[in-house]
Amino acid sequence: MATVKDKLIQEVNPGAPTVARSKVTIVGVGQVGMACAISILQANIADDVTLIDVMEDKLKGEVMDLQHGSLFLKTTITAAKDYSDTANSKLCIITAGVRQKEGESRLNLVQRNVEVFKHIIPNLAKYSPDAILLVVSNPVDILTYVAWKLSGFPSHRVLGSGTNLDSARFRFLIGEKLKINSTSVHGYIIGEHGDSSVPVWSGTNVAGVSLQSLNPNLDTGKDPEEWKNIHKQVVESAYEVIKLKGYTSWAIGLSVSSLAQSILKNLRIVHPVSYLIKGMHGIKEDVFLSLPCVLGSSGVCGVLKQPLKESETTRLKKSSETLWAVQKELKL
Amino acid sequence: MATVKDKLIQEVNPGAPTVARSKVTIVGVGQVGMACAISILQANIADDVTLIDVMEDKLKGEVMDLQHGSLFLKTTITAAKDYSDTANSKLCIITAGVRQKEGESRLNLVQRNVEVFKHIIPNLAKYSPDAILLVVSNPVDILTYVAWKLSGFPSHRVLGSGTNLDSARFRFLIGEKLKINSTSVHGYIIGEHGDSSVPVWSGTNVAGVSLQSLNPNLDTGKDPEEWKNIHKQVVESAYEVIKLKGYTSWAIGLSVSSLAQSILKNLRIVHPVSYLIKGMHGIKEDVFLSLPCVLGSSGVCGVLKQPLKESETTRLKKSSETLWAVQKELKL
Amino acid sequence: MATVKDKLIQEVNPGAPTVARSKVTIVGVGQVGMACAISILQANIADDVTLIDVMEDKLKGEVMDLQHGSLFLKTTITAAKDYSDTANSKLCIITAGVRQKEGESRLNLVQRNVEVFKHIIPNLAKYSPDAILLVVSNPVDILTYVAWKLSGFPSHRVLGSGTNLDSARFRFLIGEKLKINSTSVHGYIIGEHGDSSVPVWSGTNVAGVSLQSLNPNLDTGKDPEEWKNIHKQVVESAYEVIKLKGYTSWAIGLSVSSLAQSILKNLRIVHPVSYLIKGMHGIKEDVFLSLPCVLGSSGVCGVLKQPLKESETTRLKKSSETLWAVQKELKL
Amino acid sequence: MATVKDKLIQEVNPGAPTVARSKVTIVGVGQVGMACAISILQANIADDVTLIDVMEDKLKGEVMDLQHGSLFLKTTITAAKDYSDTANSKLCIITAGVRQKEGESRLNLVQRNVEVFKHIIPNLAKYSPDAILLVVSNPVDILTYVAWKLSGFPSHRVLGSGTNLDSARFRFLIGEKLKINSTSVHGYIIGEHGDSSVPVWSGTNVAGVSLQSLNPNLDTGKDPEEWKNIHKQVVESAYEVIKLKGYTSWAIGLSVSSLAQSILKNLRIVHPVSYLIKGMHGIKEDVFLSLPCVLGSSGVCGVLKQPLKESETTRLKKSSETLWAVQKELKL
Repeated sequence: MATVKDKLIQEVNPGAPTVARSKVTIVGVGQVGMACAISILQANIADDVTLIDVMEDKLKGEVMDLQHGSLFLKTTITAAKDYSDTANSKLCIITAGVRQKEGESRLNLVQRNVEVFKHIIPNLAKYSPDAILLVVSNPVDILTYVAWKLSGFPSHRVLGSGTNLDSARFRFLIGEKLKINSTSVHGYIIGEHGDSSVPVWSGTNVAGVSLQSLNPNLDTGKDPEEWKNIHKQVVESAYEVIKLKGYTSWAIGLSVSSLAQSILKNLRIVHPVSYLIKGMHGIKEDVFLSLPCVLGSSGVCGVLKQPLKESETTRLKKSSETLWAVQKELKL
Repeated sequence: MATVKDKLIQEVNPGAPTVARSKVTIVGVGQVGMACAISILQANIADDVTLIDVMEDKLKGEVMDLQHGSLFLKTTITAAKDYSDTANSKLCIITAGVRQKEGESRLNLVQRNVEVFKHIIPNLAKYSPDAILLVVSNPVDILTYVAWKLSGFPSHRVLGSGTNLDSARFRFLIGEKLKINSTSVHGYIIGEHGDSSVPVWSGTNVAGVSLQSLNPNLDTGKDPEEWKNIHKQVVESAYEVIKLKGYTSWAIGLSVSSLAQSILKNLRIVHPVSYLIKGMHGIKEDVFLSLPCVLGSSGVCGVLKQPLKESETTRLKKSSETLWAVQKELKL
Repeated sequence: MATVKDKLIQEVNPGAPTVARSKVTIVGVGQVGMACAISILQANIADDVTLIDVMEDKLKGEVMDLQHGSLFLKTTITAAKDYSDTANSKLCIITAGVRQKEGESRLNLVQRNVEVFKHIIPNLAKYSPDAILLVVSNPVDILTYVAWKLSGFPSHRVLGSGTNLDSARFRFLIGEKLKINSTSVHGYIIGEHGDSSVPVWSGTNVAGVSLQSLNPNLDTGKDPEEWKNIHKQVVESAYEVIKLKGYTSWAIGLSVSSLAQSILKNLRIVHPVSYLIKGMHGIKEDVFLSLPCVLGSSGVCGVLKQPLKESETTRLKKSSETLWAVQKELKL
Repeated sequence: MATVKDKLIQEVNPGAPTVARSKVTIVGVGQVGMACAISILQANIADDVTLIDVMEDKLKGEVMDLQHGSLFLKTTITAAKDYSDTANSKLCIITAGVRQKEGESRLNLVQRNVEVFKHIIPNLAKYSPDAILLVVSNPVDILTYVAWKLSGFPSHRVLGSGTNLDSARFRFLIGEKLKINSTSVHGYIIGEHGDSSVPVWSGTNVAGVSLQSLNPNLDTGKDPEEWKNIHKQVVESAYEVIKLKGYTSWAIGLSVSSLAQSILKNLRIVHPVSYLIKGMHGIKEDVFLSLPCVLGSSGVCGVLKQPLKESETTRLKKSSETLWAVQKELKL
C-alpha cells in the first residue's frame, strides 16, 4: 500500500549516495563537547555534525535534544553508533578524556588518557584518513602529541586548541580595561596551555599602537596599573569558572567553533593553536606548543615567526622540556 | 599619572549614557536559561543580554564563561547584581523555578513557584515597565498566568513558550519520516504544553498538501503507518531526553531564541505560544494556552483562528478547566 | 634575499593543493549575476565564488570590487580567466544571456541564447562534471532544457530558478495584505516562469488554514477583496520593477542564494523550481516547468505531487506545449 | 463583510504604535546607496531600513525589488514618501550627491553638493534629532563637515565613512601578498579619503609583528619588494574599478554595513572614520579627517592617539589646510 510519503513525493534519483562535504565529528558529549556542538551548529559552518561517545545514553539524549532544535538549524545531526558513522569527516574534534583522581600523578592521568585516545584516534584515522584532528581534551599539548603519534597523520593535520581560548580571555580583559571591543585588541598568549602560558606583551596592540610603548613597565611588577595581572587573571579564570559553575564550556565551545570555521572554509586566519613546533624558537623536542598559526583546509598552513624576548623563549623551552619529560614515559 | 587608556584613547563625549535598544534579561541560569542565553547570543539579535539568579556563584561563573567568549560574539553580557541591572529590558525571559519534590502535589509545586515568581515578576515589571515577559518555567501555562497577574501588564505583553518547542519536535519527526527538512513541514501542536497538548492534524501540510488528505486515517488508530504515534513521540520525547541526559536544554534554547527574534525585530511571524485565550474556541476562563500567535515588538499582535474539530476543542476546554482548577486555588 | 613573508611566516606543507569543497561558479556579471554573488557571499554558504563573463573589463571590475570587501566576507573570490578556473564547482549558476531586440521573435531570441549556452554549458560540464547547474537566464524554462541537453547531465542535476522568485513575491504580497511576515504565508506559484505562471490557491495557507476555505471565491473574479489580483501583481511586478529601475536584481539574487544554500548544505528544503516534469500532471513533453521540488546536494531529490484542479493542469499542459513548440525548433 | 484577514486573525491590541528600535535611513538609491542597503539587510542588524531619494521612480523600483526579497530577509523595508517617513532613525546614511561635471572646479562641485545637503540634512535632523549621521557621499571629509554644520548636531554624532574602505583594501592587498586572510592583517590608512590618504606603516602588523620591523625600507622607494606600492594600489583601485565597471559599490556597501553594526549594536569597535579632529596631531581647523575611532551607539566614543611620524603629521596638516581652504568658501 502506498505510504503518505509515496503519495506526496515523487522521488528523484533515490539511490544517490549523499556525501557530506563539511562533516565534523565531535568525540565526547560532556559539557565541552556539547558547547562545541551548539556553537558549530549555530555558526552554520558544517553540513553534518556527528557526535560519538562511549556513554550511550548521554549521547542519545544530547543528540535527540539537538535534533529537536533542527527547525532552527541548518545542519544534519547524527549520533554515531560506532566509528564507521564518522566516516568522511573533514574535521574531528576530540573533547573526550578522563579527569584527574585525587592524589593521581600527572603522568598517571596522561597515561590513562592515552589509553582512551588509543581507542579513539586510530578509529577516527581509519574512517576519515584525510581529516584534520583538533584536540581539545586536557592536558591539550601532550594529548595533541599523542593524537599525532597514534594517528600517523602528517603533523600539519594535527593541532590542539591550545591557547586560542587563553588569548580570547586576554583580549577580553584588556578590552574591558580600555573600554573597547576585544576584537579591536590584538594580543597573543603562546606556549603551554594553562599555568605556564606566555603572554607576548611586546606585540600586544590596539590599532597598531603597542601598549608597552605607552607603559614600558607593562609586564613588570613596577606598574601601578598592574597590567601584568591580566595574564594572572587569564590563568586563574579557568579555575575560577570551574569553582563557580563546576566546569568551563561556552567560551571553549565558541573558540573551537572559530577554529573550525577557519579550517572548514579554508580562511587562512591566524590563531594561536598547539602545533608541533620542533625547530622554532630553539625547541628541539617533538612537542606541541601554541604559536600563532595560519589555519586552512589542510590544517596548519604556516607558523608565525614572532620575535620573542629571551625570557619568553626560556619559558617556551622550559615547557618543552617538561612536556617531553612526560611524553617520553608514555606507552603509546 | 596618565593611564595606558588615557595615553591611547582621546575620549569623546565621555559622560554620555548608553541605553541598550534591544536588551534581554534572562532570569535563571540553569540548563534552560543558559541554553537560551547561548542561542540568543549566537543569533546576534540583542545588544545586551543580562542574566540574573539567586545562585550568585553559578550566575557569576556562567557569565564569566560567556564573557570569555566575547571575542566571538557581538553582545554585551552582564551578571545583574540586583534587579536594577535589568532596567530597560525589551524582553524578559523567565526560566527560574523549583522542581517537583517526590510525592508533591501539582498544586503544591505551582504554589511554591508562585512564591518564586512573587520575587521575580514585580521586580522585572518595576525596572522594565514596557517589557515583554516570556515565561519558559514549567508548568508554563499556569506560570504565564501567574506572571500576568503579578506584573499587572496588559495581556499582549505576557506570553509563555508553550507548544513552540512541541511543534518544532512535531515538524522534525514528520520531516524525518518524509525525508524532507522540517522547515518545509507545517504543523502545529496547540493547547496545554506537555501531555495534554493537541496536534492539529487537519492543517498539517507540506507545500500546501494536507497529509490527512493523503491518508484520512492519519489521526486515528487505524493507520498502518502509525502517524498518530508522532504526537505520542513528541509528548514522550521530553521525558526521554530527561531520562537520557538529565534535562532538556538545546532545543528549548533555540526555540526561545526564535521567539525572541520575532519580538525584538518586530517580525510578525506566527508561532504557537501560550497566550490568554479567553473568548476563543469557547474558552471562558482566564487561562493561557497555546495557539498560533503573531509576534512582534508589542508582544502578541494577533491570534490565528484555526478551525478545530469538536474533539480538539473539547481537549482545549478540558485543559482550560484543569488549569483553572489549579489557578483559582493559588495565593497570588 | 628573504622577503617579508619569509621572515614572517614559516610555511607548512607548502605544496599542498587546496581543493574548494563548496565552490560556486556564477556565469555572467550583469545585475542579476552580481546580485546572486553578493547574496551568496553575505550568506556565507560557499568557500569559493568564481565569476566568469566574456566582458573582461566588467568582470575584472566587479571581482576587484567584491575582493575589496573581503575583510567583511568569508569566501575566496576569483575572476576566472577561462573555464579551467571554474573546475571542481559544486554549483554553477548561469545568469548570462542576450536581451530581446526590438521586433525580434521569441524563437529568434531563444536561438541566440542557445548559441551563448553552446559556449558556456559544455565548458562548465567539462571542468565540473559533477556539478549542479542552476539556470537563471530567461526564458528560464527553455534555457534550463537547453542546459540539460548541452550538458549531457542527468536531469536531477539541472534545474532553473523558475517560479521560486514568483512564489516569494506571492507570499510577500499576501503577507502585506494580512499584516504578517511572508515566512508565515505558505503558497506556491508553479508552471512557467512569467506571464503564464499558475498560483495554487487551493494549498495557500497560514498556519494550515487555507485562505480559500475562508473565502471560496478567492481565485475567481467575484471576490470584493480581489485576492486574485495578487497573482496579477506578481506577474506585473517584474515588468514594473524593470520600468522603474531598469532591471530586477536584489530579489532574484536573494532567491537564488536560498536555492544555493539548500543545494550546497544538502538541506532537503522544498522550493518551486524548474525541473524536467515529463510524466507528472499528464505532461508528455521533455519540458522544464516549476513544481515544488526537494533540493539537496544531488540537486533535485524529489518532486511534490500537489493535487491540482483541472484548470491548473490545463494551464501546465498548455505551457508545456508552448515551450515544446519552441524547443523542437532549436538547433542544439 | 468580514475579510479573509478578519476571519483568519483575531487582532490583539490593534491600535498599538510600533516604534522601530534600530531604524536606518539611507539617503540616495544610486549604486552606493543600494549596496549599503543590501549589505545592511543581509547582515540583519536593523529592524527597519527606509530609503529616500528625489528620483521617485528609481526609489520605488529599488524598494519594490528589495521587498520582493522579504522572504529571505528579516527587516522591514520602506520607501519614504517624504522625510517624515524617516522619523525616529537611529542611523542616517547619506550617499546622495551630484557628480563632477567636465571642467568643473572642486569648489564648485562641493558647493553644488552643499545645496543638495541643505535639503537633506535639516530634514533628517528634524525628524530624527537623536540620530547618528554617517556621510558616504564624496568628497566625504568636506561633506561630513557640511553635514555637521547643517545638522547642528554635536560632533560625536556626525562621521564620514572616510578611510574605512581604503583600510580594508590595504589589508586585503597585504593579505594577498602574505597569503593570509585580511582579518589577520592589521593596518590603518588615515587622513583624507582618496589620493592624499596616509598609510600608517609603523603600526601595520600581523600577530603583533610589525612588517616594518622585518623590512625597515618598507615605506621607502628602496624596497625591492615594493611594499610602498600597496598604498599606491589602494589609491588607484577606486579609479580602476570605476574605469572597469563604471562605479564602485560592493566594497563600500560592506564597509558601511560594518560601521552601521558597530553603531547600532554599541560594539565599541575601532574603525578608521572621518571625524572632527581639531586639536589632534596639531590640527587647528574645523576639519574632518579619518583616524581610528571607537564607534558605539552614541557615535564616536573615542579617538585613538596613534604615534605618527613627522612626515605623516605633515601630510595630515596639509590635508587639513586644503580642506579648510575649500570649506571656508562654502555658503552654508
